[in-house]
Amino acid sequence: MQDKDKNSKNAILLMHCPDQPGILAVVTDFINVNGGNILYLDQYVDRANKVFFMRIEWDLERFIIPQDKIEDYFETLYGHKYDMTFKLYFSDQKPRMAIFVSKMSHCLYDLLARYTAGEWNVEIPLIVSNHPDMEVAARRFNIEFAYFPITKENKAEQEQKELQLLKEKGITFIVLARYMQIISEEFINEYPNKIINIHHSFLPAFIGAKPYHAAFERGVKLIGATSHYVTCDLDAGPIIEQDIARITHKDTIDNLVRKGRDLEKIVLSRAVEKHIERKILVYKNKTIVFN
Amino acid sequence: MQDKDKNSKNAILLMHCPDQPGILAVVTDFINVNGGNILYLDQYVDRANKVFFMRIEWDLERFIIPQDKIEDYFETLYGHKYDMTFKLYFSDQKPRMAIFVSKMSHCLYDLLARYTAGEWNVEIPLIVSNHPDMEVAARRFNIEFAYFPITKENKAEQEQKELQLLKEKGITFIVLARYMQIISEEFINEYPNKIINIHHSFLPAFIGAKPYHAAFERGVKLIGATSHYVTCDLDAGPIIEQDIARITHKDTIDNLVRKGRDLEKIVLSRAVEKHIERKILVYKNKTIVFN
Amino acid sequence: MQDKDKNSKNAILLMHCPDQPGILAVVTDFINVNGGNILYLDQYVDRANKVFFMRIEWDLERFIIPQDKIEDYFETLYGHKYDMTFKLYFSDQKPRMAIFVSKMSHCLYDLLARYTAGEWNVEIPLIVSNHPDMEVAARRFNIEFAYFPITKENKAEQEQKELQLLKEKGITFIVLARYMQIISEEFINEYPNKIINIHHSFLPAFIGAKPYHAAFERGVKLIGATSHYVTCDLDAGPIIEQDIARITHKDTIDNLVRKGRDLEKIVLSRAVEKHIERKILVYKNKTIVFN
Amino acid sequence: MQDKDKNSKNAILLMHCPDQPGILAVVTDFINVNGGNILYLDQYVDRANKVFFMRIEWDLERFIIPQDKIEDYFETLYGHKYDMTFKLYFSDQKPRMAIFVSKMSHCLYDLLARYTAGEWNVEIPLIVSNHPDMEVAARRFNIEFAYFPITKENKAEQEQKELQLLKEKGITFIVLARYMQIISEEFINEYPNKIINIHHSFLPAFIGAKPYHAAFERGVKLIGATSHYVTCDLDAGPIIEQDIARITHKDTIDNLVRKGRDLEKIVLSRAVEKHIERKILVYKNKTIVFN
Repeated sequence: MQDKDKNSKNAILLMHCPDQPGILAVVTDFINVNGGNILYLDQYVDRANKVFFMRIEWDLERFIIPQDKIEDYFETLYGHKYDMTFKLYFSDQKPRMAIFVSKMSHCLYDLLARYTAGEWNVEIPLIVSNHPDMEVAARRFNIEFAYFPITKENKAEQEQKELQLLKEKGITFIVLARYMQIISEEFINEYPNKIINIHHSFLPAFIGAKPYHAAFERGVKLIGATSHYVTCDLDAGPIIEQDIARITHKDTIDNLVRKGRDLEKIVLSRAVEKHIERKILVYKNKTIVFN
Repeated sequence: MQDKDKNSKNAILLMHCPDQPGILAVVTDFINVNGGNILYLDQYVDRANKVFFMRIEWDLERFIIPQDKIEDYFETLYGHKYDMTFKLYFSDQKPRMAIFVSKMSHCLYDLLARYTAGEWNVEIPLIVSNHPDMEVAARRFNIEFAYFPITKENKAEQEQKELQLLKEKGITFIVLARYMQIISEEFINEYPNKIINIHHSFLPAFIGAKPYHAAFERGVKLIGATSHYVTCDLDAGPIIEQDIARITHKDTIDNLVRKGRDLEKIVLSRAVEKHIERKILVYKNKTIVFN
Repeated sequence: MQDKDKNSKNAILLMHCPDQPGILAVVTDFINVNGGNILYLDQYVDRANKVFFMRIEWDLERFIIPQDKIEDYFETLYGHKYDMTFKLYFSDQKPRMAIFVSKMSHCLYDLLARYTAGEWNVEIPLIVSNHPDMEVAARRFNIEFAYFPITKENKAEQEQKELQLLKEKGITFIVLARYMQIISEEFINEYPNKIINIHHSFLPAFIGAKPYHAAFERGVKLIGATSHYVTCDLDAGPIIEQDIARITHKDTIDNLVRKGRDLEKIVLSRAVEKHIERKILVYKNKTIVFN
Repeated sequence: MQDKDKNSKNAILLMHCPDQPGILAVVTDFINVNGGNILYLDQYVDRANKVFFMRIEWDLERFIIPQDKIEDYFETLYGHKYDMTFKLYFSDQKPRMAIFVSKMSHCLYDLLARYTAGEWNVEIPLIVSNHPDMEVAARRFNIEFAYFPITKENKAEQEQKELQLLKEKGITFIVLARYMQIISEEFINEYPNKIINIHHSFLPAFIGAKPYHAAFERGVKLIGATSHYVTCDLDAGPIIEQDIARITHKDTIDNLVRKGRDLEKIVLSRAVEKHIERKILVYKNKTIVFN
């Protein structure tokens, strides 16, 4: 299906609205009647909150509504009527991703390896760091590397420069690939639910710094990693993906760090993939992740 | 949702048909227009084979078509037209399950514990065995125990008696809870896709007898268990559920057997639960398992 | 090995002491020289704390030191000299387990099914509860059921009666199989590192009451279960075993409870098995679990 | 421990011999008495075959036997006497690894990312391929790339050239990182238990070509990956590591390939790490993998 998407031009609709009978029928009918071939449909009803969520993807080849008019038509015909929150994406408009990194390379190389292999429908025009160490990785993959050393004093200023650069590069979302800096509220508000972080614990256990040390101290038998959207509340944003690895009493903190690396990079990449595929909806600090 | 199901009366539709635009809209519309409140909807399109699969569950409380007419109406209005293969179930008609067992108790007790706790919407009026050992378990849970010792000579005859008893008890599906007998083609054909087996390997590896011995010999690092519908082809029926457990070079065959027990009972119970909830469709020797 | 243990008479030594060269050699030599056949040996050195941990199991058949003298000899020859903390167990002295339960049956039946199948080298002479609901389960397996309803007012008094009964029955350890009562410090101190609890979360996340509700609220993608020894610090005792199950946005709290049940019973049983096999050492609020 | 190893100079002994009392005591005593500080000890007794296996690692700083004499001393004093098969390694003698690759990059990049980050105590002086595609990856990490296109006609000749080059480069082991060529018996015999392959199935299921297609056809619910030493028997060599990923009826073959990539690279890297750390012993076509 991935491959098919790459060759054809598709529209993707992500939406939610108050649940009421017939929404799914109405939307699928709209696509079918106008010549769209539905490639993917998944829906979910949150019965407690009475909210309807849906992701639909369809082929635009014979769709009679011009691509630049679809959003307008859809809003007029259904969006307003059903009180929908919706977002339209097109497969020929690739998301543009910036990677923020500090000194550790494992998540970065994993992302770059997938990018260079063409696994994802994404552009990565920029790597940002508060340390110069990863410039070598950026060069190897021919990606621009922007070095913004951060101190308490210059943080606000540097973040403004970063935001400026992100804007210039047309960045649509940011991946914190073990970026060891807390990002300011102002910055986060520029990319709401568009900054993906990897935290090296099974959240909400071990929030904050040095989770492997805390896990070791507590004597847990599993370590975890959690990818989530960054919100202003530290390590408390909507969780996208989590996974764990088994450890024993024999594992030192160094071993936890080592075993954690594989966990972190895989959990982060799964989240990034879902985001690129427009399969994530955020609602009330939780994610709906379509598969 | 489980608890809700138990209190209300619901209809469940499991169906597949050649894929064409609008089927989902037509069916959901049929339910909505006639006063049915959809509680569950999941659909899947096999794009390679161009087949549309769906499971819908709706509340019958205000559904204006009488329960005993729904099948007829649905067939007339849509079934024939769309070339559907469909099956209707009602939550107040509990499936009736027989458990076949030999000498091992772990899967049996796991099923009975769930049954006695009311975890499942099922009746278990009968336990069948080729050995007398498990009669004690049947008695503890007040379930009829039928002892049919099987030899090469009497197999056909005993199976006929079993089938007769199953019929009398109104059995709708059979669970082989480590039943160490191959069931004849005649018997299987009476319960097509209605006999669930647990095989103690990660199928298709280690088909047939003594899979733990074979796994040990091969030096695998994971052991598995597979629940599947029984077909006339040994251990080759549609797979419902699989899982694995990690082993090491330290594990003896006894250990594999021991670790395998937990795997077997959990994997079997997951499959039985899906069957009871009418969430499994079989198509071309594979299962669609809705969640 | 399990089966072999049952037929022969073995000694099991669990020990730890300050690490120094040669301890392992000295102890294995002691056993070999005196005619003991080592069946199991696993050791671990905590290099940070410089502590040596070991579990050795040997066949007593041709061991020349009488069973009732081994502890004394070992203490005299090595225990004192190496500042060892050690404990000797014999396979013919079965641990005696009491199960504490409230209203939920899944963990209880799982333990009883293993017991009745002879999976474990243990006696279960007693089930204690603060509710009468599980008496039926106790009766089915012919185990004495003691009903101690607990209120704020009578708690201290009832616990004293429980302790008295546990003493009479020769109980050596207690399993809290979803016992929904906090146990007093006085009670816990009578069974230090001998009360095993199952907590229905991935500790240290979601300590205390209603962890599935908390997990649902947080929107985690995995739920967990943790078995641990009970200490006076709520849900903070040494962790023995943990495991997780994957959930999605589709899972209601009821589903978490349902999926959690399998997790809880398996994680609890793994911990109980390790305890029965004398494979757990506690050191500084953490466990060394030999395999 | 890893980091410590890098700074100090250690010896690693991997051995097996017929089991008899006291071997462990004798060997640990030999190290202790001569001033070696044991950093790691793990042993395992195969009671069925009566074979004793051990891995010991010790600090050479104050070891009184010169590094180049240890093997000789050990053979003289114990090797011959106990009929040992043993191998000595030194932490300052890094294994030298060649990577064989065809067109797929995911395993290759994963190995190179770990190498460049210094995760492993290894040298990678050479990448060999039957296709030119991965030269770009080799260049990015400054590793020599040798292109040996293989046809039926030139295979024997090309393999001879490869062997020649491997010899020149001092290669001690080979990793087939999705190298889509069967290696000849002559070649394999030059590197017995020193060629690590990743097979994209849960062996012994789906041996040979196109395992994802076979898995899809069979309708399994889990896919697997297996790393193993290459022997002359296709996909039947000693298994080092295996893992699985969950799939559903929704997954197309393309999805299996995609999900399989993460599985393959992680399972391969775990095996390579164990090999580099000298933690694998092969005995009768099975591996003992110390942890």
